[in-house]
Amino acid sequence: MSHETIDATGTLPAEAIDAIERAATSAHRHEELFSDRAANIRQSAVRDVFDISMRPGLVSLAGGSPYLQSLPLERLGATAARIIAEDGLTALQYGTGQGTLELRTQICDVMAAEGILDALPENVVITAGSQSAQDVATKVFCNPGDVVLVEDPTYVGALNTFESYQVQVETVGMDESGLVPELLEAKIAALQLSGKSIKFLYTIPNFNNPSGITLAKERRQQVVDICRKANILVLEDNPYGLLRYSGEPLPPLRADNADDVIYMGSFSKIFAPGLRIGWALVPEHLQRRYYLAAESVTLCPPTLNQMLVSAYLRDYDWKGQIETYRSLYAERCQAMLAALKEFMPAGTTWTTPEGGFFVWVTLPEGLDTYPLLHKAIDAGVVFIPGAAFTPSDEPSNKLRLAFSAVPPEAITEGVRRLAPVLQEAIAAL
Amino acid sequence: MSHETIDATGTLPAEAIDAIERAATSAHRHEELFSDRAANIRQSAVRDVFDISMRPGLVSLAGGSPYLQSLPLERLGATAARIIAEDGLTALQYGTGQGTLELRTQICDVMAAEGILDALPENVVITAGSQSAQDVATKVFCNPGDVVLVEDPTYVGALNTFESYQVQVETVGMDESGLVPELLEAKIAALQLSGKSIKFLYTIPNFNNPSGITLAKERRQQVVDICRKANILVLEDNPYGLLRYSGEPLPPLRADNADDVIYMGSFSKIFAPGLRIGWALVPEHLQRRYYLAAESVTLCPPTLNQMLVSAYLRDYDWKGQIETYRSLYAERCQAMLAALKEFMPAGTTWTTPEGGFFVWVTLPEGLDTYPLLHKAIDAGVVFIPGAAFTPSDEPSNKLRLAFSAVPPEAITEGVRRLAPVLQEAIAAL
Repeated sequence: MSHETIDATGTLPAEAIDAIERAATSAHRHEELFSDRAANIRQSAVRDVFDISMRPGLVSLAGGSPYLQSLPLERLGATAARIIAEDGLTALQYGTGQGTLELRTQICDVMAAEGILDALPENVVITAGSQSAQDVATKVFCNPGDVVLVEDPTYVGALNTFESYQVQVETVGMDESGLVPELLEAKIAALQLSGKSIKFLYTIPNFNNPSGITLAKERRQQVVDICRKANILVLEDNPYGLLRYSGEPLPPLRADNADDVIYMGSFSKIFAPGLRIGWALVPEHLQRRYYLAAESVTLCPPTLNQMLVSAYLRDYDWKGQIETYRSLYAERCQAMLAALKEFMPAGTTWTTPEGGFFVWVTLPEGLDTYPLLHKAIDAGVVFIPGAAFTPSDEPSNKLRLAFSAVPPEAITEGVRRLAPVLQEAIAAL
Repeated sequence: MSHETIDATGTLPAEAIDAIERAATSAHRHEELFSDRAANIRQSAVRDVFDISMRPGLVSLAGGSPYLQSLPLERLGATAARIIAEDGLTALQYGTGQGTLELRTQICDVMAAEGILDALPENVVITAGSQSAQDVATKVFCNPGDVVLVEDPTYVGALNTFESYQVQVETVGMDESGLVPELLEAKIAALQLSGKSIKFLYTIPNFNNPSGITLAKERRQQVVDICRKANILVLEDNPYGLLRYSGEPLPPLRADNADDVIYMGSFSKIFAPGLRIGWALVPEHLQRRYYLAAESVTLCPPTLNQMLVSAYLRDYDWKGQIETYRSLYAERCQAMLAALKEFMPAGTTWTTPEGGFFVWVTLPEGLDTYPLLHKAIDAGVVFIPGAAFTPSDEPSNKLRLAFSAVPPEAITEGVRRLAPVLQEAIAAL
């Protein structure tokens, strides 16, 4: 699909999907069969730009793919070979719905490195990446019309998942220290006053995707307390938590709040996304239904993939690899920030992340970054327009730049190409 | 969990889950947050008995696991090693939501071996086993209260999926030639008369799980025509289709009905379930929404697993391996049928499958096989009670015996242990 068909939110509107389907089939009567929720399922702008990004010569600052070149591929291959040759009857067979006990136990160690010290393997449910953990949470808690609170901006994949369950997604404002507790409190009060049923707050407290912003230490317990008081669960998504390269480590919201937070982790950023292994750490009193819902979707997570992650955590220096990633991403982040400082036109600002993959650029009010994407592609660089990361259909003067997958010199070149596109737009204001 | 807590349907009733959670937490107020659908998500009896089956000394005729011992594990390990060492940057990275073009193209060849000659890779969506393909179909088509038609009996995992979407599951009777078209027609008429919205018929036409029954050739087009006339989609689940060891191959319902059938296939039975790779072949006019819904659940299928399946289909004699499986399962089926003939008490009957993994045993009317499971376990053998395979809560006088994962002598021994349990129950009638 060409980018001309994407609307201002960076997603294909339901009507456009209808139109495509009508054109292909001259209004097949099967369309009457679609569920109400089907109309809410949209194409992610990130996935859409993913295809465009593959064009040779383009610098893609769009996708948040990890840089896998530093993994010991030869050795990992030998490990996979050994697992299949020696344990293939287990690795290639059905497993339990919750995931292997070995990996769930090791995941508790990974979470301990994050600051969660009381996790038990029986409360861990292994999922197909943390995307699937979000899907299961929405399935278990949300009726159509229920409210889910999200940061503004937030992860586009989570928005797609929530909307596929016909949930009303409501945003809470952030500042440079993350989610603003007063705004959260006010939003909850207003929604509950109007009779809305709020089920959970979805938050990425460390190096938020797309903004790169981290929730300040002093706000963390406050956010959980506000939610607890209102009987709202917290869904904490923390894929980048271990990829901090400056500032002091902060405890996850889950650390001291075992009953109130569903914590979601992933091996996609600290090991390999192609294995699709993530997890949810679920409060004990919610674990059983969560696990059964996960099982009804996929029966069980792939056994081979779990065993490969287990071997990686058991036999490799996974913490050393995270150190490698940290210095790699720190260097790329520095390259990005230096290039922004050098090339960005007056009137633009951007965030300074302490970890993760993304920088969030703000243009002057009144500009819409969506139409600029076409011009940027013509100039040889790709970004994701800000509107993709909010549930509203409003134009956005923000854009996301990812530095994780691109070497420093390409980052510099990408920003150099982007600058005149933004300059021209600002000049035309 | 002990089997004493399973109810007559072979599933944990919602109230029992509530009770467990209340006991664990003294009625945590988070329970107010569960979605309406969460109450419908149940433990599968098959999964439950899966744990019991692991006890040493027991003969498990419960689980339908494939027998993987005949796979070339050493060579498959070397293939995985090569994929990761040489193509690891692709194999371990995010992929496209629909699955790799290479595997989707190869899947068209696999379907051609089944008799589907017009499949296009662009209409194939790769999923986490066919379980996930069922989940996505229900998501895209079913509102709460909509009707899904199923054979009686049918696959327990599909029932769990349908019920998790608050769908009304209605059964259609089978005889020894499969689904009875007249009963299907009458059921549809009655439901539509009462104002119900019927979205699809879920059917396993070849070697039905659990009954082993195959839909007769002359009924196949009839079933599709009845559904087409009523604007009802057909969901054809065909994991065992290539594992036929007697009788003539029959074309899938999809073969001549590209617009009306969503066809679901899986590598779980013809290759390796631990990779969790299945697929849906979706009518062109429905493909886009189906694919986007799949993406919103898992982002993308695991790349490494897809590449391993691709290498298997490209570089190995996969058709020869299916021949190996066929003779293996034919031998086990013969052992099962011979043992049933030798040991089963008067008053029992059973099906004679032409392929697949299962035999379906019927006891005299008035008996309930569920309480017999406890006695069978005491006697050293496990089966799945028939009630697990229907949506009703009624007791069932049927039981499923799987012969796929157990050597012939163990099958004989298992049936020998089962016979006196059934004999005693019949005598006590």
